[in-house]
Amino acid sequence: MRGERVSMSCRSADLCGATLVGVLGTATGIGAQALKDLQTPDIPLVLKAQGSFFVGGDKAEQTQVELGGLGPGGHITVNQMYVRYMVPQGGDGNVPVVMVHGATLTGKSWETTPDGRMGWDEYFVRKGHPVYVPDQVGRGRSGFNQALFNDVRGGSAPAGNLPPWLRFSDEVVWPNFRFSAKPGEPYPDSQFPVGAVDELSKQGVPDVSFGGLPTPNPTFKALSDLASQLNGAVLMGHSQSGRFPLEAALLNPSATKGLVLVEPGNFPSRYTDEQVKILAAVPILVVFGDHRDTPTGISSRPSWKLSFDGCQELIGRLKAAGGQAQMLDPAERGIRGNSHMIMQDKNHLQIADLILKWIDESVSKRAAASK
Amino acid sequence: MRGERVSMSCRSADLCGATLVGVLGTATGIGAQALKDLQTPDIPLVLKAQGSFFVGGDKAEQTQVELGGLGPGGHITVNQMYVRYMVPQGGDGNVPVVMVHGATLTGKSWETTPDGRMGWDEYFVRKGHPVYVPDQVGRGRSGFNQALFNDVRGGSAPAGNLPPWLRFSDEVVWPNFRFSAKPGEPYPDSQFPVGAVDELSKQGVPDVSFGGLPTPNPTFKALSDLASQLNGAVLMGHSQSGRFPLEAALLNPSATKGLVLVEPGNFPSRYTDEQVKILAAVPILVVFGDHRDTPTGISSRPSWKLSFDGCQELIGRLKAAGGQAQMLDPAERGIRGNSHMIMQDKNHLQIADLILKWIDESVSKRAAASK
Repeated sequence: MRGERVSMSCRSADLCGATLVGVLGTATGIGAQALKDLQTPDIPLVLKAQGSFFVGGDKAEQTQVELGGLGPGGHITVNQMYVRYMVPQGGDGNVPVVMVHGATLTGKSWETTPDGRMGWDEYFVRKGHPVYVPDQVGRGRSGFNQALFNDVRGGSAPAGNLPPWLRFSDEVVWPNFRFSAKPGEPYPDSQFPVGAVDELSKQGVPDVSFGGLPTPNPTFKALSDLASQLNGAVLMGHSQSGRFPLEAALLNPSATKGLVLVEPGNFPSRYTDEQVKILAAVPILVVFGDHRDTPTGISSRPSWKLSFDGCQELIGRLKAAGGQAQMLDPAERGIRGNSHMIMQDKNHLQIADLILKWIDESVSKRAAASK
Repeated sequence: MRGERVSMSCRSADLCGATLVGVLGTATGIGAQALKDLQTPDIPLVLKAQGSFFVGGDKAEQTQVELGGLGPGGHITVNQMYVRYMVPQGGDGNVPVVMVHGATLTGKSWETTPDGRMGWDEYFVRKGHPVYVPDQVGRGRSGFNQALFNDVRGGSAPAGNLPPWLRFSDEVVWPNFRFSAKPGEPYPDSQFPVGAVDELSKQGVPDVSFGGLPTPNPTFKALSDLASQLNGAVLMGHSQSGRFPLEAALLNPSATKGLVLVEPGNFPSRYTDEQVKILAAVPILVVFGDHRDTPTGISSRPSWKLSFDGCQELIGRLKAAGGQAQMLDPAERGIRGNSHMIMQDKNHLQIADLILKWIDESVSKRAAASK
């Protein structure tokens, strides 16, 4: 496989035509599809900076039992948010983009796709934007507060106090992420690389945020603080975190230069008129894939059409309040078959280009015009 | 802070003298030290490739309760290992280095240091090596198997069955990571950037690997498979994972081109003569910092000197079996004050250079000579 050239499914102007090279050796087993399938653009990535850091965090005093017993009681940090970043050479004057993942997932959502193509994180960097990818508080490299679990283990708290750890089964993912109505039988026009669905399964991690985090979710404040520290940023959320950019903007609207809500879930029209007025000051783009009528099999959200409709209603209210909000529905433009995991779909760079165009016109040029 | 130049604590030939530029905005609060303090070399990082993928993973069938209750029972993937990688432009012919983190930590250990300096991950890339940074199975972006926790919550398993979630308190970290014998009173020669110790605290995540993982730890096999898929790699472990490279090499010695054991913990001399014979075929470097007599305050390992002595004994056995094994003890060379978190110490690039020299001489040149 080393050196073999494979074609790249992309429609982007400056990356299209670029052949991709599998450079990273051969796979040895069923579980090894991902490394073998990694694709590499033949144009190198030139970074001014990359690395990681944390935003937020609270000191908590915990007992020996709560700390797992190896040492005496003491203090730890909880509720911190891990952030990985890449800044393109020459791009540190461009608006940064923060990409937040959805439920049962981590920042991995935005990295290399399940079938080995470039993730949106790198693509947005190649398009000139500094990119920041957090793990939500409570997940991935942000960790979680383990005290209650150890208290239950030690007998000082009842098991019924435990919050659930959520994961979506592979069977639920097919209809819920809208690859098809039935597991294993993809929609003929599905844009998701269903041959790599087992690699998507590996992206799943237990999610304690439905009952096991402080209220409000510390990620809201962390995102707001991150945007502020960056002197302004576009906040992009997905699915569970689709509304997080709105929550962060309500905390500090001036730091949020634009909001991109990708397939936001559980989206009631619950914002007050006062909140809508605040949000109307920020450019907002909502993005939804296709096949929104698919029954999810999850009773609390029977279909994604409900979220879509809720977003349309919010867009109407934002516009009525003088805001600049719009829906990006690729199906309306004849681009069919996009899934809930639109950032991993086969045409993900085509969708990214539409979002980048919106950022350019609605955020970057708007900021330049107001100077 | 934007554009302010700060000096870099480094002794590396080709990066020394490079000024570092803080490019990433200003901080707004106590919890925001990390972003403000990020330092950026003024030489851009040119990557042939970067991204992430998974190694390994098992399918598990779980009940609705075990999945957290949102959908019906079904299958998920568990025991997969997340890996982030960077390949330098022109470096894909050089030996890859895999860096595995220690207990209660994630791959973040090897990234940007708590006080904002370049991590070993980027430094080794800048020195020409493809670098692969996993999260151990059970932690970070690799996730863990949540079924038992949800079973206890649902009442179908007793709380006493729960494994502990381990975290080190900030107070324990000072003596255990050997910044000093007493919290807040660093050794005068301490190389750890103790002013940023609160940022180290944020790197902590709960660790279920002491009782909550399958036996043997799936990370051993995942590391062995990763090395094999890479057509050979140097495996570097730290602390808890200090012995993981040995375990991976025992599974497939030909795929491990070299082993770097950084401050390995809990190191009994338990390898059989047969195992030592297998390990003697692989070049091995053990690295230990200073102040190894510091009482850790943890009864199961009262001092790191015990681990150091265990490693010396193993090195003796490996040499007697014809192996090429050696101890790198910087204190012997007059480099004093290194901590357990040696990859984050102020002189971390100086230590890295010693390891890189060993890789060059004991792995790269050896491989070239045998061709």
